Amino acid sequence: MPLVDIHLIKGVFSDQQKRQMIEKVTDSLVSIEGEALRGVTWVRILEVASGDWGIGGRPMTAEAVRHLQQGTG
Amino acid sequence: MPLVDIHLIKGVFSDQQKRQMIEKVTDSLVSIEGEALRGVTWVRILEVASGDWGIGGRPMTAEAVRHLQQGTG
Amino acid sequence: MPLVDIHLIKGVFSDQQKRQMIEKVTDSLVSIEGEALRGVTWVRILEVASGDWGIGGRPMTAEAVRHLQQGTG
Amino acid sequence: MPLVDIHLIKGVFSDQQKRQMIEKVTDSLVSIEGEALRGVTWVRILEVASGDWGIGGRPMTAEAVRHLQQGTG
Amino acid sequence: MPLVDIHLIKGVFSDQQKRQMIEKVTDSLVSIEGEALRGVTWVRILEVASGDWGIGGRPMTAEAVRHLQQGTG
Amino acid sequence: MPLVDIHLIKGVFSDQQKRQMIEKVTDSLVSIEGEALRGVTWVRILEVASGDWGIGGRPMTAEAVRHLQQGTG
Repeated sequence: MPLVDIHLIKGVFSDQQKRQMIEKVTDSLVSIEGEALRGVTWVRILEVASGDWGIGGRPMTAEAVRHLQQGTG
Repeated sequence: MPLVDIHLIKGVFSDQQKRQMIEKVTDSLVSIEGEALRGVTWVRILEVASGDWGIGGRPMTAEAVRHLQQGTG
Repeated sequence: MPLVDIHLIKGVFSDQQKRQMIEKVTDSLVSIEGEALRGVTWVRILEVASGDWGIGGRPMTAEAVRHLQQGTG
Repeated sequence: MPLVDIHLIKGVFSDQQKRQMIEKVTDSLVSIEGEALRGVTWVRILEVASGDWGIGGRPMTAEAVRHLQQGTG
Repeated sequence: MPLVDIHLIKGVFSDQQKRQMIEKVTDSLVSIEGEALRGVTWVRILEVASGDWGIGGRPMTAEAVRHLQQGTG
Repeated sequence: MPLVDIHLIKGVFSDQQKRQMIEKVTDSLVSIEGEALRGVTWVRILEVASGDWGIGGRPMTAEAVRHLQQGTG
């Protein structure tokens, strides 16, 4: 405790970015909860296949998210 | 909000059926919550490996589900 | 299988609306998967406390969602 | 996308700390994914009743976590 | 790792039964994974409100589950 | 009901061990809830990619878990 699940669409983020997410989110929580809980702070990355995540009924692909990131979505 | 997770066994439904599920489930919710919430209605498909879903202790495979669908299960 | 989880903010929808969601979402799935799977189609409503659901870092309250529904958000 | 679920034991953190978690975790993700995705970055707090979270088979209570935080656990 | 989530309908099981579930499920896993992983074996009880869990489109109440348990369902 | 989700790191356990988990965890629950609920007791195995599960901010790999199992971690 705490347990954090970060849900992403597969193919959007690199392995390095996912490692950064685990580190930064852990540090954010530890800054609030205190260092003593670091060892029981679990952060997981869970990836959903591209196209299996719908927003307003339309499937979101990894490509669509990258366009959105670049302001071309 | 709302967020909907549809959990399936991998290999039972086609990509087209999964797209239909996202569309129909979104429309069902929007018909209750109102059109204004469509943009924040997220529907995801999450698939579990065939054999990793047990019912009453016995692993359910994609093949077993298809037999059940056809009334031969 | 399938299992569907509908995540809502507490206080936005009435019990009657939640019942409708369970019925309509079940019917949507059964229309795709076939009647034979109705008995193993589970649909659950999971509610999160108002204020515990952040969008872009800002907590979303039940009141804010209702404003959004009415086009005054 | 992304969607983040922060699972806590009820009674350990104040409302203010939970708001800070939503803000800080959102900011951590946005610093990696880019500002353009802030609006579709959802962070939720999900709380489990004290005693309903077992570690190694022993129920963890809110009180036990607070002792751990203070180094008296 | 492992993390186990046991989802129940509120009002069906007593606190004592929920404690037993945490203990027994932990012991089952440890018997397979080895004693060395006991400390990182987390088992949680997550309860859904009575009526918010639909089977085949019909809401399941705590009362209905108890009838089922007694063979009168 | 009940529904049990067992979250593992991919590559740590064999298919046979995962089948044993489904069986043993189902039997543990049935021993508490009663035989009448066996048919509606669902147990699922959900696997996370090696490296996508962080403890204290450091990614846990399947290899690291096996070292831990053997007391060499």
